[in-house]
Amino acid sequence: MATREKGSADQPTERRTTRKRAARASERAAQKQASDVARRNRELDKVTVKLIQETATEVRSEIHRGKKPDLFFPIRSLGNVSYSQKRGYFEIGKQKKTRTLTVNTVRNFAQTLRMMGLSKNLVESNDFATKRDAYYQSKNWEEAKFDEQPESDTVMDDIEAMFSVQGVSREQLRFLPDESYNGAVAGQLVVLDPDRETGEVEHIDCTRFGSGAYSIPSSVEQISFETEARFILAIETGGVFQRLQSHKFWRTASCILVSMGGVPARACRRFIRKLSDDCKLPVYAFVDCDPYGISNIYRTLKVGSGNAAHLSQFFCVPQARYLGVTPSDIRDYDLPTHPLQDVDVKRAKDALKNDPFFKTHKPWQKAIEDLLRMGVRAEQQALAKWGLNYVIEEYLPRKLAEPEKFLP
Amino acid sequence: MATREKGSADQPTERRTTRKRAARASERAAQKQASDVARRNRELDKVTVKLIQETATEVRSEIHRGKKPDLFFPIRSLGNVSYSQKRGYFEIGKQKKTRTLTVNTVRNFAQTLRMMGLSKNLVESNDFATKRDAYYQSKNWEEAKFDEQPESDTVMDDIEAMFSVQGVSREQLRFLPDESYNGAVAGQLVVLDPDRETGEVEHIDCTRFGSGAYSIPSSVEQISFETEARFILAIETGGVFQRLQSHKFWRTASCILVSMGGVPARACRRFIRKLSDDCKLPVYAFVDCDPYGISNIYRTLKVGSGNAAHLSQFFCVPQARYLGVTPSDIRDYDLPTHPLQDVDVKRAKDALKNDPFFKTHKPWQKAIEDLLRMGVRAEQQALAKWGLNYVIEEYLPRKLAEPEKFLP
Repeated sequence: MATREKGSADQPTERRTTRKRAARASERAAQKQASDVARRNRELDKVTVKLIQETATEVRSEIHRGKKPDLFFPIRSLGNVSYSQKRGYFEIGKQKKTRTLTVNTVRNFAQTLRMMGLSKNLVESNDFATKRDAYYQSKNWEEAKFDEQPESDTVMDDIEAMFSVQGVSREQLRFLPDESYNGAVAGQLVVLDPDRETGEVEHIDCTRFGSGAYSIPSSVEQISFETEARFILAIETGGVFQRLQSHKFWRTASCILVSMGGVPARACRRFIRKLSDDCKLPVYAFVDCDPYGISNIYRTLKVGSGNAAHLSQFFCVPQARYLGVTPSDIRDYDLPTHPLQDVDVKRAKDALKNDPFFKTHKPWQKAIEDLLRMGVRAEQQALAKWGLNYVIEEYLPRKLAEPEKFLP
Repeated sequence: MATREKGSADQPTERRTTRKRAARASERAAQKQASDVARRNRELDKVTVKLIQETATEVRSEIHRGKKPDLFFPIRSLGNVSYSQKRGYFEIGKQKKTRTLTVNTVRNFAQTLRMMGLSKNLVESNDFATKRDAYYQSKNWEEAKFDEQPESDTVMDDIEAMFSVQGVSREQLRFLPDESYNGAVAGQLVVLDPDRETGEVEHIDCTRFGSGAYSIPSSVEQISFETEARFILAIETGGVFQRLQSHKFWRTASCILVSMGGVPARACRRFIRKLSDDCKLPVYAFVDCDPYGISNIYRTLKVGSGNAAHLSQFFCVPQARYLGVTPSDIRDYDLPTHPLQDVDVKRAKDALKNDPFFKTHKPWQKAIEDLLRMGVRAEQQALAKWGLNYVIEEYLPRKLAEPEKFLP
């Protein structure tokens, strides 16, 4: 009797204590991870502010010495981009343009310095500005105000490119895109996001969004991750994402689903890159089999885009591999197709002829030539011909059994 | 000593018990709410299946009687739309087109019946199909397959319009849009979403997403809400949403933020409508002050769109009011502007002349005429001229103090 009482009283307590201890340990680990990220970011903030100050100080000294100060910006164009398979992304080349302070350039020069000053203020107040915010902020810069947003966008891009050479990203400068959609996430992932003011860490469990999902914020520099997933599946269309999410494909496949919504926004690419880097997870892309899906969506995700190569080192996902839909899937799965339009053919031929990424990878050249020979394209939802959930029950499991066959 | 021990041992237990009891009560309330929604949806499912069966049975009986069966569809065009201030949304009129089964129409007639059959299967298996899914499904319908997606979209729209007259929405037919972005949510709201298979209810707390947000799913029929917020703020741009979310404006203002990302997708509008109806919350729209923000984004949110009037009864938000940016804000806040383009002027004049909504509301006519006289437009981020967080610290609090002044 005594034993039984003891058992029924103590065992639950013990179990509770063990559970509590485990929860506390996990909480401590999460807090530590978040504070490591916060410390690293504070160090990066110092570097950023220091670089801004040094650049500005140099300009001032030149002026005091009676000289005309210069600023140097990498040229942002496809002609100044290189791709090395080893690095895995588009790199900006060594060509630079020089902006010297003269009577003609004084306004633009002043604007550049004001924009750098805005960045410094943002870092110091832990705030951010979108491109549009920055344009309107300038309306209070008197003579240095911008007349149109494209002007301020160019100055911002130049500053980003200038500092990117020293390893500082746009996010560290606290400049964010204006995009509304940065992608959605569901699956076996906990996002750790510390509060801007208190530092208290939110645990965002991406298995707990019902039929909805986690919407990626404009900047992901402060977040870290906990996951036991096996891979990340980056999906082109909202329709396929919603199907996989509603049927909890992430549970059976032990993975993380990311909805890119077409060409992935920068924050979406940065999120996938950070998640893959931090948690050593492979990234598989699942997009339409057409020149747009291959050479715009997948290529941008993996190696970056030509006219923003200064951002690629931070934003692209060199470890991404192409799961499908492949040209040979069209045959193997007898998919309904549409004929290639002129614009598709042009895009495919451009990729073969001019794109350093496709020129480097033989299997891609073969695949694109194959597609051009067939003269057709297929959407990822074409698999629905065989049943709405064929993609979940047949296609993805078969594909995922042989990741070594994915295109590079 | 005994008292102290009793105190320190029992009080926490009591408190724990009270807390547990409160948690259990809240959990029971949530479960009840979710199961009420589930029961209502099961009843709607029965109605939907019955309507499909009756329509199909009628067709069969006609054929057996040796007659040519007819199907009647409301005409989906601006000419067959009316707006009554009392109902508060665009209503589809009484004009109908008849599709009679003949040698010429047999394929389209068969496709319509197959599409209705697909809907019945989806309701019965608790699954869904996007427009694109449905198109590809048809590839296995032999003679009844569609050659191009626009054909299947039209048949689907016709079926939606036909059943909408009997109060059945597209979501009840289990047809979903293909859109990737259905809006994002942050703030004082718990979304209750029961699992598709187990019925277990997820509590999605929209105050706990750090700098991220809740991404609205393609269909929101199954969800319900818990909230103590005072209003819903529907925001046009991702930039402003991210600012309000990062600075937790929803906490100080006690509200729910919804990012529409331009013209709100159907699921986004349905979400706002359901939330506002279920929780009796006012909806305030915060968009750019230009003819597009006013007559496309706000008008679509509030009363629906002309060519999908059969959906308005489910999707529009007649209770929405226009917080800003108003033409008079441009003067009152001395905002930076852009000149109106020809397309803006045309859109504004069209609204005044042809749009039943604007023709009904005098204050809107005045506001649009005012804007045309000024000849300029202003973006919501123009407020950043006065400081990046002016929108949070000054503009919104001032506006929200006088909601009776909002445009209708």
